[in-house]
Amino acid sequence: MKIGILGTSSVGQTLAGKLADLGHDVVVGTRDVAQTLARTASGPYGLPAFSVWLKEHPTIRPGTFADAARHGAVVLNATNGGGTLAALERAGAANLDGKILVDIANPLDFSQGMPPSLSVCNTDSLGEQIQRAYPDVKVVKALNTVTAALMIDPGQVGGGDHTLFICGDDAGAKGEVTGWLKAWFGWRDVLDLGGISNARGTEMYLALWVRAFGALGTGIFNVKIVR
Amino acid sequence: MKIGILGTSSVGQTLAGKLADLGHDVVVGTRDVAQTLARTASGPYGLPAFSVWLKEHPTIRPGTFADAARHGAVVLNATNGGGTLAALERAGAANLDGKILVDIANPLDFSQGMPPSLSVCNTDSLGEQIQRAYPDVKVVKALNTVTAALMIDPGQVGGGDHTLFICGDDAGAKGEVTGWLKAWFGWRDVLDLGGISNARGTEMYLALWVRAFGALGTGIFNVKIVR
Repeated sequence: MKIGILGTSSVGQTLAGKLADLGHDVVVGTRDVAQTLARTASGPYGLPAFSVWLKEHPTIRPGTFADAARHGAVVLNATNGGGTLAALERAGAANLDGKILVDIANPLDFSQGMPPSLSVCNTDSLGEQIQRAYPDVKVVKALNTVTAALMIDPGQVGGGDHTLFICGDDAGAKGEVTGWLKAWFGWRDVLDLGGISNARGTEMYLALWVRAFGALGTGIFNVKIVR
Repeated sequence: MKIGILGTSSVGQTLAGKLADLGHDVVVGTRDVAQTLARTASGPYGLPAFSVWLKEHPTIRPGTFADAARHGAVVLNATNGGGTLAALERAGAANLDGKILVDIANPLDFSQGMPPSLSVCNTDSLGEQIQRAYPDVKVVKALNTVTAALMIDPGQVGGGDHTLFICGDDAGAKGEVTGWLKAWFGWRDVLDLGGISNARGTEMYLALWVRAFGALGTGIFNVKIVR
């Protein structure tokens, strides 16, 4: 499947690597390709520089945000939440319209120190902002409640017996994404919360996630809805 | 143990009933005792009127917020979040100072329709507002992430194998409360998030809780931190 991934940091790299391993045709988009490829310093969490990482994944092609969006039959938003709307503007509505956009970003605001707060919450969400700005895109919020390594391998904890939340206004798109999450990554419990306004719930959960991360000393955890 | 409970709705009744059954000496506080006792109409969720319920729990005594706070060696805040600060003002700092106050309330705002939003969040929380207003009270935020019936009987789902979050600035108070949660109600996994500012995390989680409630059609669920 042709997949466009917006963003070259840990989430983008992790998703791209896994999807390429599964045989998908992946383009990873960034703002300035030459600048991104010129970076040689390792990122946080021991992440290799994008150009170093790319050499280990020869089937993955780098491109602009517009290249990635144009390429994808589905587009995954793995940009930082603070930069998402600017990245989508560069991607271009014409390259996104009619497609499913899986929004994985969280509007985290690190400017006030740790743990981060949210730059939008309670009566609005990043998921809704994207859907309002791109009414012809099928925005599906998913995967934003777990760290990158768990997104693609939920079996790392609890034998994979924990919950992923999904929401969006287009039922067909949610059905497709749910199928991909199960087939690509092995998710088993995907809970549909309803329309895209429910992104308020999964984004605000980050306020608890960052604190559980602090208490546990690891991001390799998830919640299971026990019912 | 002498326990003061602020609030006569489902959370107050559920906690008071269980604690009285365990042999504790419970006073339940309300704004206007005569008015509360005069109500005969059943509440939401098939809850009996407080006066009807009280007849079935003859050892529990009703009183004002001040009576309940004065009585308790520990005080449980089971008021609605929107009325908590007014209730505490009536309870009186002199009756609360030096004591542990377990804050179970959430600052839910139903004025904009369902699901509710929060009247304070992100850069502040109800737990912090209480602690700032009553600096000599040991505020411990706990139990606010589950519905009343689960607070006192976590074994109702998943054999009790799920997580309760606790936070507060006084380590000794948190230790006492954690012990009570285990001994009184059977909680097993109590995760300490740190100081009271972490109430932002557990209160903002309510934005996800109310949506999971909607999707599941029941409030009888909780999250387990799978790690």
